[in-house]
Amino acid sequence: MTPTITAFERSPDGGKGLARDMRVRWALEESGQACQVRLVSFQALKEPAHLRLHPFGQIPTYEQGGLTLFESGAIVLHIAEGHAGLLPGDADARARAIMWMFAALNSVEMAILPWSIFRFFDDTESTPGREHLEKFLDKRLQHMEAVLENCEWLAGGFSVADILMADVLRLVDRFDGLAEHPACHDYVARATARPSFIKAHADQMAHFAAAD
Amino acid sequence: MTPTITAFERSPDGGKGLARDMRVRWALEESGQACQVRLVSFQALKEPAHLRLHPFGQIPTYEQGGLTLFESGAIVLHIAEGHAGLLPGDADARARAIMWMFAALNSVEMAILPWSIFRFFDDTESTPGREHLEKFLDKRLQHMEAVLENCEWLAGGFSVADILMADVLRLVDRFDGLAEHPACHDYVARATARPSFIKAHADQMAHFAAAD
Repeated sequence: MTPTITAFERSPDGGKGLARDMRVRWALEESGQACQVRLVSFQALKEPAHLRLHPFGQIPTYEQGGLTLFESGAIVLHIAEGHAGLLPGDADARARAIMWMFAALNSVEMAILPWSIFRFFDDTESTPGREHLEKFLDKRLQHMEAVLENCEWLAGGFSVADILMADVLRLVDRFDGLAEHPACHDYVARATARPSFIKAHADQMAHFAAAD
Repeated sequence: MTPTITAFERSPDGGKGLARDMRVRWALEESGQACQVRLVSFQALKEPAHLRLHPFGQIPTYEQGGLTLFESGAIVLHIAEGHAGLLPGDADARARAIMWMFAALNSVEMAILPWSIFRFFDDTESTPGREHLEKFLDKRLQHMEAVLENCEWLAGGFSVADILMADVLRLVDRFDGLAEHPACHDYVARATARPSFIKAHADQMAHFAAAD
């Protein structure tokens, strides 16, 4: 049964190509699955019908048969568990690929988010907390640079962990934050050159173009 | 084979009882497993031997047989997959419990972290980015409040998702951020009243007391 995912109806704020349904679209493309996309307006995100699917009033959601999921990380893990090619078969290698999924979403994206919010608001004021948050991302990127200088993909061959890590690092790249981290930059370039990323990205952009 | 985890040797900054090995200790207690704890100094965290185990130079790590993991989320998922009682048996229910794990670490902790950093640094200056980050947590807590008004635990019975969600919300509680969210506050109280939490917390505190 073809799954249905949700995506933003519009993207007025420069976030085109970055919304989190990208991760799900990409994982579905990598695993050769079609999906139906239901577009949700900003108003509808706040309404009870959508909040029943996604308690934080966000996208994406994933519906297939009787199962409804939110959280992009959980959705792509579910997709990877059900289709060959996105997770290693060996138990220990699989655990390490899942470890890198959590690394992308908890250790790396958590450092990227506040950093990107300051840039999004063109907020340049330096305060003690802000300084700490800037250093937090800088340290994470230094550590990721050391990792990515020594591997093509995070967990052996390309895996669902690379979908998440490349996708979170794309947001840094958008604000030119990878200029001093060439291995991170090259990793993002390598991941986003995959035909499945290109197709998923084009699909998200096509929805926004139609809405505009 | 008894797993070995790592924890901070000392906690000079008021973070006693909050470091992320708590999540792993708690999951091990819930699943009735012993572990060995190796304490790591702040200097040793930055050295190559530790960076080979944890590329971000953090704790906890988890070593068992030939497997080495970092990322508290991945470690507790690995523990839950290997022992009954922390994940539902039914496939869809299991996927939803894992969804709440990602929700705790990606949607909720990501909003908590910058908020707590500002409080940790006693940084009260309001800037546009800072205001957005404050509202980000406020919205997430409102949404979690609505969820927790209607359930005892997130995924049916108590699960590994509750370990992570309660543990991330504890950091808000520490700075009195749950005062206006009684269902979240009660949830944290309910989770941390479990004998396994109490034992895990006492074990972490005992290490720090010995170091002091």
